[in-house]
Amino acid sequence: MDAVQERLTEFSQEAHELYLNTSVPYLDGPPEPLDFYRDWIGPNKPCIIRNAFSHWPALARWTPDYLREKIGSKVVSVAVTPNGYADAVAGNYFVMPEERKMSFSSVLDIIEGKVRCSGRPVCGLDRCGSDSLVDRMFQVQRNGVFYVQKQCSNLLQELPELIDDLEPHVAWMSAALGKMPDAVNFWLGEEKAITSMHKDPYENLYCVISGEKHFILLPPTDRPFIPYGVYRPAVYLEQDSGEFKVVGTEDSQKVPWIPLDPLEPDLEQYPQYRWAQPLRCSVKAGEMLYLPSLWFHHVQQSHGCTAVNFWYDMEYDIKYNYFQLLESLCEAPGRHEFRNGVRNQRRTESASE
Amino acid sequence: MDAVQERLTEFSQEAHELYLNTSVPYLDGPPEPLDFYRDWIGPNKPCIIRNAFSHWPALARWTPDYLREKIGSKVVSVAVTPNGYADAVAGNYFVMPEERKMSFSSVLDIIEGKVRCSGRPVCGLDRCGSDSLVDRMFQVQRNGVFYVQKQCSNLLQELPELIDDLEPHVAWMSAALGKMPDAVNFWLGEEKAITSMHKDPYENLYCVISGEKHFILLPPTDRPFIPYGVYRPAVYLEQDSGEFKVVGTEDSQKVPWIPLDPLEPDLEQYPQYRWAQPLRCSVKAGEMLYLPSLWFHHVQQSHGCTAVNFWYDMEYDIKYNYFQLLESLCEAPGRHEFRNGVRNQRRTESASE
Repeated sequence: MDAVQERLTEFSQEAHELYLNTSVPYLDGPPEPLDFYRDWIGPNKPCIIRNAFSHWPALARWTPDYLREKIGSKVVSVAVTPNGYADAVAGNYFVMPEERKMSFSSVLDIIEGKVRCSGRPVCGLDRCGSDSLVDRMFQVQRNGVFYVQKQCSNLLQELPELIDDLEPHVAWMSAALGKMPDAVNFWLGEEKAITSMHKDPYENLYCVISGEKHFILLPPTDRPFIPYGVYRPAVYLEQDSGEFKVVGTEDSQKVPWIPLDPLEPDLEQYPQYRWAQPLRCSVKAGEMLYLPSLWFHHVQQSHGCTAVNFWYDMEYDIKYNYFQLLESLCEAPGRHEFRNGVRNQRRTESASE
Repeated sequence: MDAVQERLTEFSQEAHELYLNTSVPYLDGPPEPLDFYRDWIGPNKPCIIRNAFSHWPALARWTPDYLREKIGSKVVSVAVTPNGYADAVAGNYFVMPEERKMSFSSVLDIIEGKVRCSGRPVCGLDRCGSDSLVDRMFQVQRNGVFYVQKQCSNLLQELPELIDDLEPHVAWMSAALGKMPDAVNFWLGEEKAITSMHKDPYENLYCVISGEKHFILLPPTDRPFIPYGVYRPAVYLEQDSGEFKVVGTEDSQKVPWIPLDPLEPDLEQYPQYRWAQPLRCSVKAGEMLYLPSLWFHHVQQSHGCTAVNFWYDMEYDIKYNYFQLLESLCEAPGRHEFRNGVRNQRRTESASE
């Protein structure tokens, strides 16, 4: 199989020489649908579009005060983790966040530092005033890292009050793809909240409203350099002590995920990653990243960054077909045993960001 | 390597299940550029477009009489072979046709059966009247199978008088691709003229003006089932005896080509071809075939069929990158030795039709 491995390495390098850029290019305004399809979606290449949503009221409006007034009392799903890593490998587990229902104003309190306490011993009682129900809620909420990152169209489902501040789809993208987005998601999180490296089966338009997002991107063709393992699924659960415990879920099916941290890649354990050629980019307020389907990405953000992204279902076409071939040729262990029925596994990999 | 071969077979079959059609679909009129890009060019799928060039005067005008009057005296390049196969494998050779310069009216004489003699002994002297220079030309020309099939934009280069009968490009295709065609080719040939199975690095729009063309098509993803060999290049040369001799060219570089004849596939010699799933279609006068880049195709035609095709350069993008991987994994011998520098070999495979 050495010849295959060599050829896969050569193949990935050819991709960079043939058609990939060495950094993420900028467009200065919203593109024509056909041009965007031909130049970016078809070739599966990322770009950052400036001035694509200058007309959205959200850009000026989405201050903490405005959000507090508009949706402060709404209950939203929040991902809570001890370390900022939701949906990531920890030890032998693929660990998902504790999902909490909280009022949006409670989330803003945390983001704005109005509830500063973290860790144990519990420190908030004297400052929070009384041991009322609300304050006890704060005590429970103040440990860990918080991230409003629920997918499945949480903007439309949970926060419809915000829809007038933007648009329910990106007109030129919908025209290009000939369809509407599958989901419109709202993101708000702390600086420590990190999305671990993964890929999604979506054409993704990621719009930063305030703050900035930092992406590390790897093309699908770099798949040979990206390690995968399979892990028991688990969730974080905060204990009465305030510590988070990793609890295996009932689901016995293991999850394939990437254990590598591109911020500090362990090249001794994953030597093939030295050949990877990640692109890094920061997407600032008012900018929109086109993140093509099946690109691997790792995401960080400035504290309190707000963002909205649009997921358009990818096409299961010749590129997907080729990617499945590549994936199966890369698969551990030993690269000798290929999955059966890969077609049926399209959507088993959890998607986020 | 068995696991790789198995996986390649599975991959090709997945392509058919995922996104390929079981026959070549029809569109009822010229498409919008964006729709065509999204539905056919991007996914690399063939279709036949009806009513796409109803406004071309050629459709009504291109009778033999008209062509004789308009361009009868023009000298054109004609491919002549003993058996109709130009650019095909014969024994250990890749044999190219004898290229002759002839007046267009001489070609029409042959097509129209006005010079019926073929083979030896020479039979035309008594019917052709005298041993004039013209008749001796006919004697030379009347053996073999004739095909006006010179590529490199022979319509624009050799027959500019015909341009007013059509258009120099297909407006919606040029808009879709954002570029003009690399070549516009004119085709006129005998029923016996056959184009052997091959692929081209072009997005191809094939417009039949009169008669019909019969295509056997195989997607790039069927590459694992298509045998290739490497052959010494040669050309046919007609001898004084009227017989054609195969003469090796000076060029020492061997040519990779497909020895298999899809009309009568030799499954004993090429057992993997039994997995191939060829599409067959006939393109009639007034119809236009979109033949996507890198699709394998074998072409026959009705006697005297006239056609024009437009070659648009393909993009050397992610699909090409993936195809190169596939190609190298399929490569004989032994599939262990991969080509170096495949990027530089993009255009070495001769292209035709």
